[in-house]
Amino acid sequence: MSTIRLAMAQINPTVGDLQGNTSKIIEYIDRSREQEADIVAFPELAVTGYPPEDLVLKPQFVRDNMECVDRISAASDGIAAIFGYLDDRPDSGRDDGDGFTPAATRVYNAAGLAFGGRLAEVYHKIHLPNYGVFDEDRYFKPGEDSPTYLVAGVAVGITICEDIWYPDGPIAEQSRAGARLIVNINGSPFHAGRRVERERMLSQRAAANRVFLVYVNMVGGQDELVFDGGSMVLGPCGQLIARASQFEEDLLVVELELDDSSSNTEAHGAEIASASTSGPDRSVVEHRPSVYQGDGEVYAALLLGTRDYVRKCGFDRVLVAMSGGIDSSLVAAIASDALGSENVVGVSMPSRFSSEGSVLDARALACNLGIELREIPIEDGFSVFMDALEPHFDSTGWGIAEENLQSRIRGNLIMALSNKLGWLVLTTGNKSEMATGYATIYGDMAGGFAVIKDVPKLLVYRLARYRNSLGAEPVIPQSVIEKPPSAELRPGQKDEDSLPPYTVLDSILEAYVEEDRSFDEIVEVGFEPDVVRRVVSLVDRSEYKRRQAPPGIKITPRNFGRGRRMPIANRYRPF
Amino acid sequence: MSTIRLAMAQINPTVGDLQGNTSKIIEYIDRSREQEADIVAFPELAVTGYPPEDLVLKPQFVRDNMECVDRISAASDGIAAIFGYLDDRPDSGRDDGDGFTPAATRVYNAAGLAFGGRLAEVYHKIHLPNYGVFDEDRYFKPGEDSPTYLVAGVAVGITICEDIWYPDGPIAEQSRAGARLIVNINGSPFHAGRRVERERMLSQRAAANRVFLVYVNMVGGQDELVFDGGSMVLGPCGQLIARASQFEEDLLVVELELDDSSSNTEAHGAEIASASTSGPDRSVVEHRPSVYQGDGEVYAALLLGTRDYVRKCGFDRVLVAMSGGIDSSLVAAIASDALGSENVVGVSMPSRFSSEGSVLDARALACNLGIELREIPIEDGFSVFMDALEPHFDSTGWGIAEENLQSRIRGNLIMALSNKLGWLVLTTGNKSEMATGYATIYGDMAGGFAVIKDVPKLLVYRLARYRNSLGAEPVIPQSVIEKPPSAELRPGQKDEDSLPPYTVLDSILEAYVEEDRSFDEIVEVGFEPDVVRRVVSLVDRSEYKRRQAPPGIKITPRNFGRGRRMPIANRYRPF
Repeated sequence: MSTIRLAMAQINPTVGDLQGNTSKIIEYIDRSREQEADIVAFPELAVTGYPPEDLVLKPQFVRDNMECVDRISAASDGIAAIFGYLDDRPDSGRDDGDGFTPAATRVYNAAGLAFGGRLAEVYHKIHLPNYGVFDEDRYFKPGEDSPTYLVAGVAVGITICEDIWYPDGPIAEQSRAGARLIVNINGSPFHAGRRVERERMLSQRAAANRVFLVYVNMVGGQDELVFDGGSMVLGPCGQLIARASQFEEDLLVVELELDDSSSNTEAHGAEIASASTSGPDRSVVEHRPSVYQGDGEVYAALLLGTRDYVRKCGFDRVLVAMSGGIDSSLVAAIASDALGSENVVGVSMPSRFSSEGSVLDARALACNLGIELREIPIEDGFSVFMDALEPHFDSTGWGIAEENLQSRIRGNLIMALSNKLGWLVLTTGNKSEMATGYATIYGDMAGGFAVIKDVPKLLVYRLARYRNSLGAEPVIPQSVIEKPPSAELRPGQKDEDSLPPYTVLDSILEAYVEEDRSFDEIVEVGFEPDVVRRVVSLVDRSEYKRRQAPPGIKITPRNFGRGRRMPIANRYRPF
Repeated sequence: MSTIRLAMAQINPTVGDLQGNTSKIIEYIDRSREQEADIVAFPELAVTGYPPEDLVLKPQFVRDNMECVDRISAASDGIAAIFGYLDDRPDSGRDDGDGFTPAATRVYNAAGLAFGGRLAEVYHKIHLPNYGVFDEDRYFKPGEDSPTYLVAGVAVGITICEDIWYPDGPIAEQSRAGARLIVNINGSPFHAGRRVERERMLSQRAAANRVFLVYVNMVGGQDELVFDGGSMVLGPCGQLIARASQFEEDLLVVELELDDSSSNTEAHGAEIASASTSGPDRSVVEHRPSVYQGDGEVYAALLLGTRDYVRKCGFDRVLVAMSGGIDSSLVAAIASDALGSENVVGVSMPSRFSSEGSVLDARALACNLGIELREIPIEDGFSVFMDALEPHFDSTGWGIAEENLQSRIRGNLIMALSNKLGWLVLTTGNKSEMATGYATIYGDMAGGFAVIKDVPKLLVYRLARYRNSLGAEPVIPQSVIEKPPSAELRPGQKDEDSLPPYTVLDSILEAYVEEDRSFDEIVEVGFEPDVVRRVVSLVDRSEYKRRQAPPGIKITPRNFGRGRRMPIANRYRPF
């Protein structure tokens, strides 16, 4: 029976913060050594943060990252450390010889294995994702080898993220070569339902290859992405042995007992896998990870994404325009939960069309959350603008120009506060709005971060109810949840004057935007052809707005942003 | 001696306009047949337009494109047509078997060879660019075969764009197999200097393989990209035989005489290549293509990019905020040249800080261009906003908030006109501004298309002088070119109060942004370390603004937009 103690260092690096990330890695190596771990594993590209995007194209960045690898390796005395970094092997692709533009020199997405104060081995990621939000072919050369290393007396295979999704990927070769333990390091972003999918795949992969499988994920927010952590260990029968927290840093130490008699090449009895406890501070049984379900998981992702964007960008406080509607109410609650109520300032900017109820709802919410609320009416500004524009509006009737004007006055006022006070503006638009263009560019879309940009309207309601269920008293007033949604930019306006009911709209949007369903397929589900045509047209015509929208947190399989790249000038009509 | 008549159909398709593009292709097939061509070649992805981006992920789009292939093939009676389209061969990449998210089904970037009313052969692009503005690995599977086809009695090899940049790419195999003529179809975007580079490479490739090389490029603007056309034919000694126009549609017919005795496998005398004339309407000698040089080439690219963005997005008229400064003056001139002066409306929005000279300069320019100028002073709006904000500004002094406020009032006014009148707003910021963040988000950055977004400030001046050199009288007043640049957002403000002189700034920006030079390398060129630090910090800190900027025309090797993808939350400091 071999025993190996393994630490999963589920850290939250910051993209570009090479020195900070390196110091954190070394700190976790030291903590793992104190817990008598034989191996400590860090996430994919832990040195640079993930995704570093075009920083990878800067040779200086890659060199600076290599210096960090030296610092980390030097700290690996008495413990094996596996960590992700950029491995610099120059490559000249295309037509260098003729003197024409070569393709960029590309590096490897690598896992270093350091031991005894030096870098002992390097694994290069083989399967590079280049779909969805991923652009890894832009930066990385694929690795070719799937070696197995002897670490603390155990044959170990290293893989990186995408590698493990291929049944015939490196794990197959490594287990055939005798690997008993596969360490898979990840920068695997969250979306709703992802954790369950991931665990199912990992379980199958471990069982199919009869290996212990250690999945170490990154945690933290980076622009659009949230890495949810949830690192785990699976045994050779596919059983879950231990799990780290979701949405927070964690150091999970497990002790694995490997039955030396078993082999991967012949039929054999089940290996004995256990998480043994040899003292209170080394026991995984003691570990009580935070794992979230359903809407709570999405809410937690939004908290982490918001907190990390604000802080990693160097801000302390945020502004939220509070209309008294459901979207801004949810965003204010998320901001308050993520940053502390003392760091959130609401701004109420009522117009002649704001209902008294909305103004009161905004005040009640601010009071419930314990956040400051500032009020700046826009009526005077609106009148002056209308006077200035009157000679150019040619006595046309009320329309979209007058509605957007109000929204843009609000955008101007809140940005002025942002500039003066140095606070970041969070925008409040949801995914259904972003999809249909039911938002004012430079108006309510003005701000640094769009918290619920990837949250469809119906989920906005569910999240509001979820948040209210957490305390004894609801923080979001019941009237906010119950009143019909309205932009309040003209008398008696309701969202449903311009859009289909959200129960219909959100289903069509999911089919069209996230699933790339054809017009006929969507109609076949049972929607009115005219309604589908209208929704599809709204989506296609709003691309120019989305291109100028702030980034927001991805919580679905396909988000507006890096996840969906559509042309603006586009005459395709799918009906 | 074999003779082959070849037509290069340098068309301007629109992304997504499958039926329109197909009709255009068939029209050019018919015109080529009338000119007795044996072969007509169209650009890369002529059916879909290029780049179709995530439209490719929609199965319905790919199917609709395949129907167009049938229409085109049916029209190929008596002529061979080579054209780019999406070839649909489903592929399940990753872990489909386990039921997890598969990689998107990817298609081929294909060239069809239709003849006699049917699709005879299909070539699949082998080398997929996935750098710079290109994302072809996201969409396409690479081809594997480099066949040679017999067309009109001549052995022909087909290649697509990037394929030809590899000396050992398909051209080598095709010429070894006896191909006498290589048809290379392209969607190759413009940047300054690109044409010369391209011609040099093509000449070398033709000579090295002893083949006729036919380079057919797309023409037209598509979002950020301008395809400059400039299709050409090179002979087996690398000599240029014929060239099509730049920046406009063209149909160039050449007759090539191939010496039947020559072979590619043995030493042989030079092939005789000539563009024979067998009648006035089939002579390439008669062809007088428009080819541009230097700043004139950039100016022509900006015209085409502007015209196509505006029209392909369905607009007729545009608005330009005219401050009397050099940037807005150049943009107004480009808009007027691109769309006609009757389709451009200038908007002058003076504040208390606008100099009298600036207001007069804007008027003089509008008069010279023959465009309408509307004046909407912002003073009243500014006063009302300042009053509303006063309680929140806590008696702090004048600063960036007050400056941006003015710019955002202008943004609001011009967007109100845009909404009311249905005219597109062109923004006027240059690349030096975009790089350093010397622009107001939601203010002067507000608009649909950023004409000179990729034009550094010094080049803005050169282009203004170039434009003035075209007529007998300068259109851009000399005072606009001579006065020190200023945003006029506070008394006596000059750009150089906040930024290094543009001669210094533009050089540092080119080194840092376009060439990825390290801090040390830039300092070694001879710049002050403090200045370099300041510029680099400005660039890095302004990423959030650029993410929300409208698209603009790429004219350099690396543009802000699809060409440069940086994280916003980014703590890397290269010094």
